[in-house]
Amino acid sequence: MPQIIAQPLTHAAFAAFGDVLEVQGAPDKLINAGQCGRYHDRARLDFGPGGQAGISLFDAEPRALPYLLDMVERHPEGSQAFLPMHLNPWLVIVAESGEIPGAVHAFFAAPGQGVNFHRGTWHGVLTPLARPGLFAVVDRIGDTANLQEYRFKTPLEILAP
Amino acid sequence: MPQIIAQPLTHAAFAAFGDVLEVQGAPDKLINAGQCGRYHDRARLDFGPGGQAGISLFDAEPRALPYLLDMVERHPEGSQAFLPMHLNPWLVIVAESGEIPGAVHAFFAAPGQGVNFHRGTWHGVLTPLARPGLFAVVDRIGDTANLQEYRFKTPLEILAP
Repeated sequence: MPQIIAQPLTHAAFAAFGDVLEVQGAPDKLINAGQCGRYHDRARLDFGPGGQAGISLFDAEPRALPYLLDMVERHPEGSQAFLPMHLNPWLVIVAESGEIPGAVHAFFAAPGQGVNFHRGTWHGVLTPLARPGLFAVVDRIGDTANLQEYRFKTPLEILAP
Repeated sequence: MPQIIAQPLTHAAFAAFGDVLEVQGAPDKLINAGQCGRYHDRARLDFGPGGQAGISLFDAEPRALPYLLDMVERHPEGSQAFLPMHLNPWLVIVAESGEIPGAVHAFFAAPGQGVNFHRGTWHGVLTPLARPGLFAVVDRIGDTANLQEYRFKTPLEILAP
């Protein structure tokens, strides 16, 4: 069975798939009399024609590493951001673009790191590694299914970093 | 000095000011083969004409209770959602609507509770009660200041519940 070692989640490594949402370096702006740093507009949001932004909450079962990956999905009509509402690390899985998914990459998100998958990015389902698996999700609200799934013939094993 | 005791943050108590974003009760939809509950589209987002949704991160200094409230602000052109990226309680302060702020209300947000202030709601600045004061913010991205501030002649004291 193919094995993939989860890598640290960095802007450079994730750039082809989406945005890493985290506090790093100096804020774009100091607000509230200097008491708050604003890291401004850090996600490339895209809700396509006929869609609009919404905030939903996801409550997912925690998984363990090694993790068996047997499918990925994508949302052809919009971006999808996952913002952990906790400070636990979690697992982010993506695959390179194409009509069927290309090479799979796994990332170990550090505490405080969220992601925004760009429109159409193949990705694994939400995989927290601890309870509660609680995330705020900013994605497209619309009338269409906006979902494609791809099941691998041979599952892949994702290993801890 | 006027004193206000922070109340538990509930949908009913907060309805005039915005949405409480939390996992409570049954999900609207089970996804990912039953492994994830989706609490769907829980915020009344509004980015006004000429604005669009953005995701920013705020990193705010923790405050302590009792807390001296000397000002509130509002965003006339858009809603603003605060999603804690941690599981600590935090303080939410709002004031009733009007050209100048009406009666002040304070809420003690429980772990896992975020809020979305409806467009134009008077509110206090971001007041986490523990470190890190890390929040994802979904608000209006646009070219205007979209900010009004009001300074109280007499500060109010916000007390622990």
